Amino acid sequence: MRIARFSIDGNVAFGAVEGEGTGDSAGLVLDIIKGIPYADFELSGTKVPLSKVRLLPPVLPNKVVGYARNYRDHAAELGNEVPPVPFAFLKPTTSVIGSGDAIEYPAFSNDVSYEAELAVVIGRMCREVPRERVKDVIFGYTCANDVTARDTQKTEKQWARAKGFDTSCPLGPWVETELDPADLTIQCTVNGEQRQLGRTSEMVTSIEDLIVNITEAMTLLPGDVILTGTPAGVGPLHVGDEIAVTIEGIGTLTNRVIKRG
Amino acid sequence: MRIARFSIDGNVAFGAVEGEGTGDSAGLVLDIIKGIPYADFELSGTKVPLSKVRLLPPVLPNKVVGYARNYRDHAAELGNEVPPVPFAFLKPTTSVIGSGDAIEYPAFSNDVSYEAELAVVIGRMCREVPRERVKDVIFGYTCANDVTARDTQKTEKQWARAKGFDTSCPLGPWVETELDPADLTIQCTVNGEQRQLGRTSEMVTSIEDLIVNITEAMTLLPGDVILTGTPAGVGPLHVGDEIAVTIEGIGTLTNRVIKRG
Repeated sequence: MRIARFSIDGNVAFGAVEGEGTGDSAGLVLDIIKGIPYADFELSGTKVPLSKVRLLPPVLPNKVVGYARNYRDHAAELGNEVPPVPFAFLKPTTSVIGSGDAIEYPAFSNDVSYEAELAVVIGRMCREVPRERVKDVIFGYTCANDVTARDTQKTEKQWARAKGFDTSCPLGPWVETELDPADLTIQCTVNGEQRQLGRTSEMVTSIEDLIVNITEAMTLLPGDVILTGTPAGVGPLHVGDEIAVTIEGIGTLTNRVIKRG
Repeated sequence: MRIARFSIDGNVAFGAVEGEGTGDSAGLVLDIIKGIPYADFELSGTKVPLSKVRLLPPVLPNKVVGYARNYRDHAAELGNEVPPVPFAFLKPTTSVIGSGDAIEYPAFSNDVSYEAELAVVIGRMCREVPRERVKDVIFGYTCANDVTARDTQKTEKQWARAKGFDTSCPLGPWVETELDPADLTIQCTVNGEQRQLGRTSEMVTSIEDLIVNITEAMTLLPGDVILTGTPAGVGPLHVGDEIAVTIEGIGTLTNRVIKRG
């Protein structure tokens, strides 16, 4: 099931997406959800066309955990080694936006880059999850753009500002709850031109092992997001660009870059 | 005014601390607050002795931003330079505990250290705060312990796990809203022995400049916390240790270290 979060006429709701499409709203409808998607819920049967709503970030995370250098080709293109153990970083929830929202180019950077990534959405409060139980704590998957101020990332040893500025975490367009993430294409286009094309099967550390790794340290909560790394092909964004992240079986996350006003 | 958050008989409230003392509960009472401390509020006049309540973290942050190497002597003791520009890291909200709560020694580390720090609590939603307006966005100050897995910090390039594990961010005992933070003693004791003694006047980058720096990138929300760095004297913690952070004019934050169960 594809679960979106949206607003219409000032009201916010979750809805199940029905119909065919990959992010383009033509023909899609939302069946409004009664209850909370992470727990028991039912479909209300009240339907609204996707074209009439504003999509919001599909989750309200308590935290967004990212993993760096999890695709060999991408590590190499920036002159980095794949780390011997994966290492996690955090993006603040104030960085999260939805599909259709604007990425605001921050004033402190002159080199903002896209990074298309598969995002795992957590469904249950969990800590110290054994590898064989990881599937039980996953709610679903969405597309992410781990937008990064590349210049700041080089000058500041920790990446809170480089990867945590407002609007640096587009997520969406919705969460797909029924998906085998083992071998999906991840594609990124800028103004319609393909820039990244990878497969989730190229991840160095698996989703299972990433979740084991982070929950050794910290409790995850329903709606928390794990970013699983980006394939090769990252590059600069400019004001006016339209950037689209498409993951097979999920859909397309689209954002435009604007000057921070 | 000193504002605490606490639970009693299953109810959670904010309260103004009245009486003399520095973290020891003898003689202190809490006047329960009606409303939210960041906005307009009044004191109810209903008072409970501090000895009857459980203190909670005095704030519920959306994010905790830390700054590293902001005291020259501490940077030097770990063999680090003071960075040319300050750099920020994030601790997740799941790491926050209050005074009296236990620090759980995580299984993945064998070298967990204390770091006594002055914490700034934000009172207003803000971004791109000019230096001269910083005082308007500060709600008050509390004591923090930026508990760090020093071994993990060395092996993992980003510090999400090293500084973000559950219970790694003790805050408290309360927020002091009327305080000049320019030159206060910060002291840390382990089992009653003094380990750290510094003054906030030794900070390399001022509180004003730290808040300018972080709000260039991200929006801060009421209750958000900025950790301002630790003076020299950090060292290992062991299961069973009692660690106390005392800041002049605020009070004492006390936590005991236990094995994660």
